[in-house]
Amino acid sequence: MNFASDNVSPLCPEILSALEHEAYGNAPAYGADETSRQLDAAFSELFDREVAVVPVATGTAANCISLSALVSPFGGIVCHHEAHINEDESTGVAFFTGGAKLMPVDGPAAKLEADNLDAFLASRVDRGVHSVAPECVAITQATELGTVYTADELAAIGAICKKRDLRFFMDGARFANAVAHLGCHPADITWKAGVDAISFGATKNGAQAVDAIVLFDTSLRGRVEQARKRSGHLYSKHRYLASQLLAYVKDDLWLRNARHANGAARTLCDMLVSHGATLAHAAEGNELFVKLAPELAQRMRDAGALFYPWPSLGADIYRFVTAWNTDIAQISELNDRITRN
Amino acid sequence: MNFASDNVSPLCPEILSALEHEAYGNAPAYGADETSRQLDAAFSELFDREVAVVPVATGTAANCISLSALVSPFGGIVCHHEAHINEDESTGVAFFTGGAKLMPVDGPAAKLEADNLDAFLASRVDRGVHSVAPECVAITQATELGTVYTADELAAIGAICKKRDLRFFMDGARFANAVAHLGCHPADITWKAGVDAISFGATKNGAQAVDAIVLFDTSLRGRVEQARKRSGHLYSKHRYLASQLLAYVKDDLWLRNARHANGAARTLCDMLVSHGATLAHAAEGNELFVKLAPELAQRMRDAGALFYPWPSLGADIYRFVTAWNTDIAQISELNDRITRN
Amino acid sequence: MNFASDNVSPLCPEILSALEHEAYGNAPAYGADETSRQLDAAFSELFDREVAVVPVATGTAANCISLSALVSPFGGIVCHHEAHINEDESTGVAFFTGGAKLMPVDGPAAKLEADNLDAFLASRVDRGVHSVAPECVAITQATELGTVYTADELAAIGAICKKRDLRFFMDGARFANAVAHLGCHPADITWKAGVDAISFGATKNGAQAVDAIVLFDTSLRGRVEQARKRSGHLYSKHRYLASQLLAYVKDDLWLRNARHANGAARTLCDMLVSHGATLAHAAEGNELFVKLAPELAQRMRDAGALFYPWPSLGADIYRFVTAWNTDIAQISELNDRITRN
Amino acid sequence: MNFASDNVSPLCPEILSALEHEAYGNAPAYGADETSRQLDAAFSELFDREVAVVPVATGTAANCISLSALVSPFGGIVCHHEAHINEDESTGVAFFTGGAKLMPVDGPAAKLEADNLDAFLASRVDRGVHSVAPECVAITQATELGTVYTADELAAIGAICKKRDLRFFMDGARFANAVAHLGCHPADITWKAGVDAISFGATKNGAQAVDAIVLFDTSLRGRVEQARKRSGHLYSKHRYLASQLLAYVKDDLWLRNARHANGAARTLCDMLVSHGATLAHAAEGNELFVKLAPELAQRMRDAGALFYPWPSLGADIYRFVTAWNTDIAQISELNDRITRN
Repeated sequence: MNFASDNVSPLCPEILSALEHEAYGNAPAYGADETSRQLDAAFSELFDREVAVVPVATGTAANCISLSALVSPFGGIVCHHEAHINEDESTGVAFFTGGAKLMPVDGPAAKLEADNLDAFLASRVDRGVHSVAPECVAITQATELGTVYTADELAAIGAICKKRDLRFFMDGARFANAVAHLGCHPADITWKAGVDAISFGATKNGAQAVDAIVLFDTSLRGRVEQARKRSGHLYSKHRYLASQLLAYVKDDLWLRNARHANGAARTLCDMLVSHGATLAHAAEGNELFVKLAPELAQRMRDAGALFYPWPSLGADIYRFVTAWNTDIAQISELNDRITRN
Repeated sequence: MNFASDNVSPLCPEILSALEHEAYGNAPAYGADETSRQLDAAFSELFDREVAVVPVATGTAANCISLSALVSPFGGIVCHHEAHINEDESTGVAFFTGGAKLMPVDGPAAKLEADNLDAFLASRVDRGVHSVAPECVAITQATELGTVYTADELAAIGAICKKRDLRFFMDGARFANAVAHLGCHPADITWKAGVDAISFGATKNGAQAVDAIVLFDTSLRGRVEQARKRSGHLYSKHRYLASQLLAYVKDDLWLRNARHANGAARTLCDMLVSHGATLAHAAEGNELFVKLAPELAQRMRDAGALFYPWPSLGADIYRFVTAWNTDIAQISELNDRITRN
Repeated sequence: MNFASDNVSPLCPEILSALEHEAYGNAPAYGADETSRQLDAAFSELFDREVAVVPVATGTAANCISLSALVSPFGGIVCHHEAHINEDESTGVAFFTGGAKLMPVDGPAAKLEADNLDAFLASRVDRGVHSVAPECVAITQATELGTVYTADELAAIGAICKKRDLRFFMDGARFANAVAHLGCHPADITWKAGVDAISFGATKNGAQAVDAIVLFDTSLRGRVEQARKRSGHLYSKHRYLASQLLAYVKDDLWLRNARHANGAARTLCDMLVSHGATLAHAAEGNELFVKLAPELAQRMRDAGALFYPWPSLGADIYRFVTAWNTDIAQISELNDRITRN
Repeated sequence: MNFASDNVSPLCPEILSALEHEAYGNAPAYGADETSRQLDAAFSELFDREVAVVPVATGTAANCISLSALVSPFGGIVCHHEAHINEDESTGVAFFTGGAKLMPVDGPAAKLEADNLDAFLASRVDRGVHSVAPECVAITQATELGTVYTADELAAIGAICKKRDLRFFMDGARFANAVAHLGCHPADITWKAGVDAISFGATKNGAQAVDAIVLFDTSLRGRVEQARKRSGHLYSKHRYLASQLLAYVKDDLWLRNARHANGAARTLCDMLVSHGATLAHAAEGNELFVKLAPELAQRMRDAGALFYPWPSLGADIYRFVTAWNTDIAQISELNDRITRN
C-alpha cells in the first residue's frame, strides 16, 4: 500500500513488451533507427499539429534542456514557488541555461493566476541590465499539489506571454493525469493556449524512464538536440527511449494509465473523507493533500500505508499519490483495516 | 552484418531478464530500493576494495560527471587527441566542470605515453593564473582506436599523476574488452595503478543504457551525486539502472560478453588479413582499424557488411566493431561471399 | 543637487593624487609592483588581523567572485530580498558560482533577523540532493535601504552560520558608512562576528573604480585569484587598483569621506522633516528613504534636486543618497528654494 | 630599461589629463553621462562606419565578452595555438561562452594562414551533435609574436568565414601597433575584411585600464551589454572608462603612441642585430623575438635590461617589448653599456 510517490511503481506491461521487442536485432544508434524515426509522426498526430520530439530519460533533463532553449543566460523564468524546477531540481535550471534565474511567485494550490502573474511581470519591466528580465513563464500541469489548470486558465496565461513577448513552457510530468481529468484534447491545453514546449512525462505513469521534450516551436529542435548531447542525455541505443514512448501513446495507454491513477485517487479520497479527513485543496489528478487527525494518520500507518507528511501546507497535512498500478482492492482493504482498528 | 558500432547491438538476454524481474512490484525511488543498495558491495567485490558506485545512463554523463568532481573550473584535463571526451562529447566537459579545459596530446594508436606525458606536464608547471594548469590525466581503456594499455603502462602514468599531484581518470566505455584482452584482475589496471575514478561501461557491451561511475576515492561520492542530480541523470526508478549493472557483473557476464566480442574481432581480422587487408595498428579489443584495397572494401559492402571509413588514420582505412552479439557464423558467410565475388 | 546615487560623484582628490603618483615610471604588472604588495599589510592593520586582499574594479565583481569561492555550484546563498546580489547584479551570482541559487528571505528595512534566518535555515535541512542546501549567508552592510546592522546583530547571524556550518559573506559596498555610523572598529563587525569575506567598497565613497575582496579566511586567496583572472578582473596595470585602495585607507580617508556623507544625509533628513517629510525607516548611513507629499516632491524637483521614487517601499516614497562630495551649503540652498516656492 | 612587457608602462599624460578632467563634478552613472555618450560617434568616425562601443577595463574581458556574443555554448572558436585567448586567459573563454571550445591550429609566427584554416574547417564539417562545430575564427592583430596580418591576409580569412557562415573576431590588444605598421586605415583591416567585432586595446598603449569592444555588427550590442553587466564589468563611474578612450583616439594619440613603440622596437632591433642577435621572425610591431648568444644575453642583463626568455620558440630566444614611453636614449645607453662590457 505504497502511496509515497508514483515513482515507486514499476514499468507497465505494454512498455516492457516494447522493450522486449527491441531485444533481438541490431539497429542504428543515436536515433537513426526505425523506431525512433516514428516519434515525430506519432506525437504530431497526438497533438494534431506538427511537433518535434526529443526524448530523454528524466523529467529534470526534459525540463532543464527545454528551458535552456527558451531563455538566455541573463533571463528570468517565472514559475510558482512550488514548481518542481524551483524546489526539486537542485540548481539544474541555472546549470543548463547558463545562469537564468527562477522568479517564483505565489498562487493558490500551486497554480499561477493570470492577474497576479501579469502584475508581477509589469513590475519587472524596463529595469535595464542590472535586473533580471523575465523571458519565460513555466507552469506545471498537473501541478505539484495535484491541481489542474483549465484550458481557459492556460489560455489566459498564454495571452499574457504573447502580449509581453515571453516564452511559455509546461512541465508535463503528470500531463496525462491533467488530460484525463479535463477530458480535453491535448492540443487544447498546450499549443492552442500558446505553449512553446512541454516536457511530456511518461516515467511516473508507466514507463521505465522516459520523458519527451515536445516542441511546438519546431525551430527549437537543433538547439535542444545540441543541449541534449552535451549534457549526456543522448542515448546511443536511442530506440529504448523511443520504443517506450511509442508504446506509451499507442492506443491511449497514457490516458488509460492516468485514468486509472486518477480514479484510484478519487476512491482513496472518498475513503479518507469518510473517516473524517478533509482536503487541503481540490484533488484533480493522482495526488491528494489531506488533513488527517493524528489518530487517523497513525491508524493508516499501522494498517501498512506508506505516505508522506507535507508540512509546507500545514500541520497534519499528508500527501497520497496513486499510480497506474494502484490496486483499488487495496484501498478497500485499507478501509477495512483502519475501520477495524 | 553490422560492424558499424557496438552501439547498434541490443541489450542482452541476462539484462532483459533483470529488467523483467523489476517489472512487477513497487520499490522506493531514487536509489533507496534493495536492488540499488547492492551496487556498492557488488563492485567492491569486483574490484577487491571498497568503492562507491553511481550509475548513469550514458557514457558521456559518466565521463563528464566524474571529471566535474576531479577538477576545478580553472583546471586542465590532459588526454589524447583521439579521446572520446575530446572528440565526441560536444562541449560536455566544459559544461559539467564549469569551464575546465581539455589539453590534448599525441601518442601512437590513441595511447598516452608516460615519457611524453611527463614532458608535457613539465612544460605547464608554474605558469601562474593566466595559464591553465593540468589537474587531471584522463585515459581511455580500451582506447578509441582499439588498443589496450598494459598494467605497467598505466602504473607509469599513475606514478606521474601522483608525483605531480594530479587526478587520474579512466574512461572505461570498453573496460570489459580491455580486461578480457589482458586477462588481468580489474584492480590491476585501475586503483592499483592510481586511478581515482572510472566510468565503467556496460551500454556497448550488452546493457540497455547504463554506465557506472566507480569511485576508488570514495570521498567523491557526495559531489558526484550532487552533479548527477542537477544534470538530470538521477533516475527516479533507479532500480532500472541498478538491475542492469548487477546482472552485468553477475557470473562474469561482462567478461563473457567482452570475450565474445574480442574473439569475433580476431576472427574478422584473420579473415580480412587473408584477403590482403593490413592492420593500421594492433587490434586488442573489439575494434579493428584496417587498410582495405578499394576493390576489397567494395566487395565487403556488396556482401552486406556495414562499416565506416576512418579518414583521420589515412586513406583506405576502415573501422570494424564487433559486439557481444556478433554472429561468428556471419563472418564465415561474409568470407564466402567476398571469396565468391 | 544630485541625490540620485553615490555613483554620480567623482573620484576624490586624494585618490586622484595617488593615481597621478603612479603616472610616471614603469612597474611590474599583475600585482608584482611595490604598491600592490603593500595591500595585505595595510588591510591587515586596518582589520587588526591577517587578511588577504584581492582588488577588483566593481562591486558586482567583488561580490560574485567572493561568493564563487564560498559556495559550491549546488549550493544556496541566503540573503535579503532587497540584496544587491539578488536585485541588481543580473544573473551574476549564478554565473560566477556555476549555478548556486539565491534564497531570498524577508526582514525589516533590508536586514536579516537572526531568528527568522535560523527558522528558514532549519526548514531547509536534510532535504537531499533534489533540494538546494544553503551554504552561505550574505548580508549587506550598510544595507540597500540605508540601515546598519549592529555588532550584536551580526554576531548573532555569525553564530547561526557557525552552528549550521555555513559561510558568512558581507557585501560592504557602503561598509565605510556603516563603520562611520556605528563608531566601532572594523573588526567588530566583520571577522569578530564570524564573517569569512567582505567586499570592501571604495567606489561609492571616493574612489574611481575599486572594491577590495578582503578575505578573513586567507585560505580562499588562491581560488579567488583564479576566479578573478578568468573573469577578466585581473588588471595588468594592477597598481592602479592598489594605489586607489592604499590612498583610501590611509589616514582614515575612507572614514572621513563616509562621515561627511552620513552627516550630509542627516542634514538633508532634518531639512526634509522640517518640511513635513517622514522617514520610511531609520536612516543610518548615506541613504534616506522618505515619504514626501506630492506637492513637496514637486517643489524639490523644481528647485533642481535629483532623486528617485522608490515604489517598492510604497507610494510617495523617495530615495536620497549623499556622497563624500555632497555640498552641505547646497542643502541650505535647497531649503531656501523650497521654502520660497 | 624594462622590456619585459608593455604592461609595465604607466598611463600617458593625455589620458591622465582626461581622468583629471572628470575629477570634479557629478555625472550620471552607468554610461548615461555626456562623456560616455560620445563613444559611439568617436569610434564610428575612426572606423568610417557605424559601430557600437562597449568599454571594459581589461583585454581578457573584452575578448571573452565579445566571443560570448558570437558563439553558442556548443560551438568552436578556431584560433592560433599562440592566441592570448588560448594561452593566457585561463578558462575565460569557456566561462563566458558557457562552454565553447577553443580549436587551436598552427601557422608561422602566430598567424593563421587562409589555406590551412580552410582545410581545417573543411575537416570539421557535418560531424553532427557529437562533435564541436566551429562557429567563429579569432585572430590577434598584431599577433602575440609581434607579427602583423596584411589587409589581404585578413580579407582572405574573412572570405572563408563568410563562405562557411562563421563569425570573425579580432583580438586587437595591439591593434594600434598593427595599424601603425601597415599605415592603413583601420577600416581596411577590420570590417572591410569581414570582422564582426574587435577588442580595441588601449591599456598596453598608454591607457590606465580600458579596452573597447567595438561591434561592427551593431545588433550584438544588447547581448554584449548584458554579458558585461553580469560579469561585473559595467563600471558605475563609466565616464572613467569613456574618458580614457576618447583621449586615446583624439588627435591620433593611439597611433602616435604606437608609432613610438614600434620605432623603439626597430631601434632596439637594429642595436641587437649589430651585436650579433638574429630575429626569430619578422618584428612588425612593438615586440621582438630574437636569438641571443648566452654571453650577449648576460651582458644585456648586466647592463640592467629586463626581458624574458621565450622557450616555446627555442633555446636562446628572448622577447623584448617596447611601449609608448620607451626612452630611445636608453637604447643608446644600453648599447654603450654592452659595448663597453
